[in-house]
Amino acid sequence: MASDSRERMVRSAASLISSRGVSATSFSDVLGDSGAPRGSIYHHFPEGKQQLATEAVRWTSDRVIAHLRAGTGTTPSEVLERFINMWRQVVLASGGASGCVVAGVALDSEADVEGESLIDVAREAFHSWVEVLADQLARAGVPARRATAIAMTTLAGMEGALILCRAERSVRPLDETAAELMRLLPNGAGADRSPEPYST
Amino acid sequence: MASDSRERMVRSAASLISSRGVSATSFSDVLGDSGAPRGSIYHHFPEGKQQLATEAVRWTSDRVIAHLRAGTGTTPSEVLERFINMWRQVVLASGGASGCVVAGVALDSEADVEGESLIDVAREAFHSWVEVLADQLARAGVPARRATAIAMTTLAGMEGALILCRAERSVRPLDETAAELMRLLPNGAGADRSPEPYST
Repeated sequence: MASDSRERMVRSAASLISSRGVSATSFSDVLGDSGAPRGSIYHHFPEGKQQLATEAVRWTSDRVIAHLRAGTGTTPSEVLERFINMWRQVVLASGGASGCVVAGVALDSEADVEGESLIDVAREAFHSWVEVLADQLARAGVPARRATAIAMTTLAGMEGALILCRAERSVRPLDETAAELMRLLPNGAGADRSPEPYST
Repeated sequence: MASDSRERMVRSAASLISSRGVSATSFSDVLGDSGAPRGSIYHHFPEGKQQLATEAVRWTSDRVIAHLRAGTGTTPSEVLERFINMWRQVVLASGGASGCVVAGVALDSEADVEGESLIDVAREAFHSWVEVLADQLARAGVPARRATAIAMTTLAGMEGALILCRAERSVRPLDETAAELMRLLPNGAGADRSPEPYST
């Protein structure tokens, strides 16, 4: 029961921070959204909102990594599309209102001593995503050096596209960005959708 | 004098929102940063913080457009590099701490009735940047349809890169993203740095 309310609070915090940032997300909002009892705040998160935000970032990051690792993509296009579609679903499910909790934390935390550790957690999340995505692209046949550059650029493109989608209340900016990012793959967009020597 | 303190408040608001978002930027912060007298708030911004944030977005947007239009780039690479270098300077000048005020507004405004008009202003800013950048790419010889797609993707890439740079406290994510985005230009990265038929 206790760990269930903790989990719900982390999920709610991730959702709220995704759509409004850290500063505009209060403990009361998280309690209201999660239905967790008020007393559970200092029981589960004795260090306060920063601790809750940190866990929201880690929870999201773990889910992104799990989603990527569960992929069956064997071509570079399939690998990149899987990553892109994950963000596309975030936009579609929220009517464009939601973004990335890690970006919300990175953008909304001031560079003071207190905020620094939250920025560290955001940086670790971004690093781990680029690393796993680059590894999958490399396994699918993209030269290692290009794989890391394409993974980093795709993450930047998706994070920026989420902002444009939010302003637009539409998935169109993400789709247009995605189509261009696919062109970065060796042989260009979609060229490796047909069976390739390196696909299994 | 009065219009001078107004201008200073708008500049300060743009700077503060860029580095911490709308919610975490108070009128007191803006007064402290700009040195404007307290009484000037309701004199200049009777509609409150939303009005100040709106003007900060418009002021920034106008500066971006002016920067682009002042460009002398005649090749697609020069055009794209001019846009990218503008964001690069933002990162370098702030040690990675600053972002884009328009993104700060888009991410940090809730999709409620009050926030909607601020989102509208952010959307208009993004649209105008993509339009001018695409127009300049097309004038430099990029086919019109590709020009818009590349402009949109470059904006998304830069907005996302600012977030990664903030997490990293380094300009490296922007530089790596920029190098990949340059590859989207016809003939690939840097291929049109040498004199081209369409350069003057």
